[in-house]
Amino acid sequence: MDLNALHKLGYGMYIIGARQGDKLNGQVANTVSQITSEPPTVAVSINKSNLTHDYIMASQAFSAAILHEQTPLPYIGNFGFKSGRDVDKLKGMNYKIGNTKAPVFLDHATAYLEAEVIQHVDVGTHTIFIGRIVNAEILTEDRCMTYEYYHAVKRGTTPRTAPSYIAEEKGDKK
Amino acid sequence: MDLNALHKLGYGMYIIGARQGDKLNGQVANTVSQITSEPPTVAVSINKSNLTHDYIMASQAFSAAILHEQTPLPYIGNFGFKSGRDVDKLKGMNYKIGNTKAPVFLDHATAYLEAEVIQHVDVGTHTIFIGRIVNAEILTEDRCMTYEYYHAVKRGTTPRTAPSYIAEEKGDKK
Repeated sequence: MDLNALHKLGYGMYIIGARQGDKLNGQVANTVSQITSEPPTVAVSINKSNLTHDYIMASQAFSAAILHEQTPLPYIGNFGFKSGRDVDKLKGMNYKIGNTKAPVFLDHATAYLEAEVIQHVDVGTHTIFIGRIVNAEILTEDRCMTYEYYHAVKRGTTPRTAPSYIAEEKGDKK
Repeated sequence: MDLNALHKLGYGMYIIGARQGDKLNGQVANTVSQITSEPPTVAVSINKSNLTHDYIMASQAFSAAILHEQTPLPYIGNFGFKSGRDVDKLKGMNYKIGNTKAPVFLDHATAYLEAEVIQHVDVGTHTIFIGRIVNAEILTEDRCMTYEYYHAVKRGTTPRTAPSYIAEEKGDKK
């Protein structure tokens, strides 16, 4: 069994935004999928140890900014390799408060969605949040960044808390 | 609200294989996502009206062949726009019986996975099957076909039963 086959799965790259009370946070995710078309719903898998997980659970809503292919690596790094418990990830960021009151991150976004959670599924280390789309907008005509592109071209790496983290990847310089 | 923003989400393209008794079937899906890394699990959203849905429910297992970018459109059409209730989709196809006894479709696959269902989630028109990876292999070094590539370059269309079907798309020739 070669778990590196999992790296062949195709994803986009997203900044997930969420709120708890007056606190806002965002994090990188690659596992946003449409689940049904009637009504339009999406799912995202979030690590239980992430602050954004707590905020989504508290407010039952999230935003997803769909990153375009030319998104600079430091922008992703700001949201992906830091915790909102330690730093204010929103400092200097261009965002708006969406219909769900979650922050919607606008830099490098080709489109965004907002969703109200209708169901959540405990899958061990992660929770799958299933949300009904309540807002969606296309911002640019750019292509979305694919996870493969992020890995291959941008030499991006995967934080340990990501669903797609594979322990062996540290030795895999491909 | 512009639901076409959902078309900006990034996916790969997959042939999902499943078995019920001695009957085998396969279908196209684009919503395969890794969900956790410990243990390695993936989720796939399947329309309840599809034959493959019944087979996965019966056998609690599925395979996912990850299609490479150069997959010819007729190959996808064979699995995506026909029902195994009407035709034998496996006729003339190159497949093997995997560890889970599900068929694993090998043509145009850059890698494949097999999973045993550990949880399924009713989401209205669809079921999300969450499976623990029990087999995985890389077959070629090709890049996976992205759903965006399928739509933009190959001019692929989306069957009405897909999670990502958007009614307005019929008028959207982009």
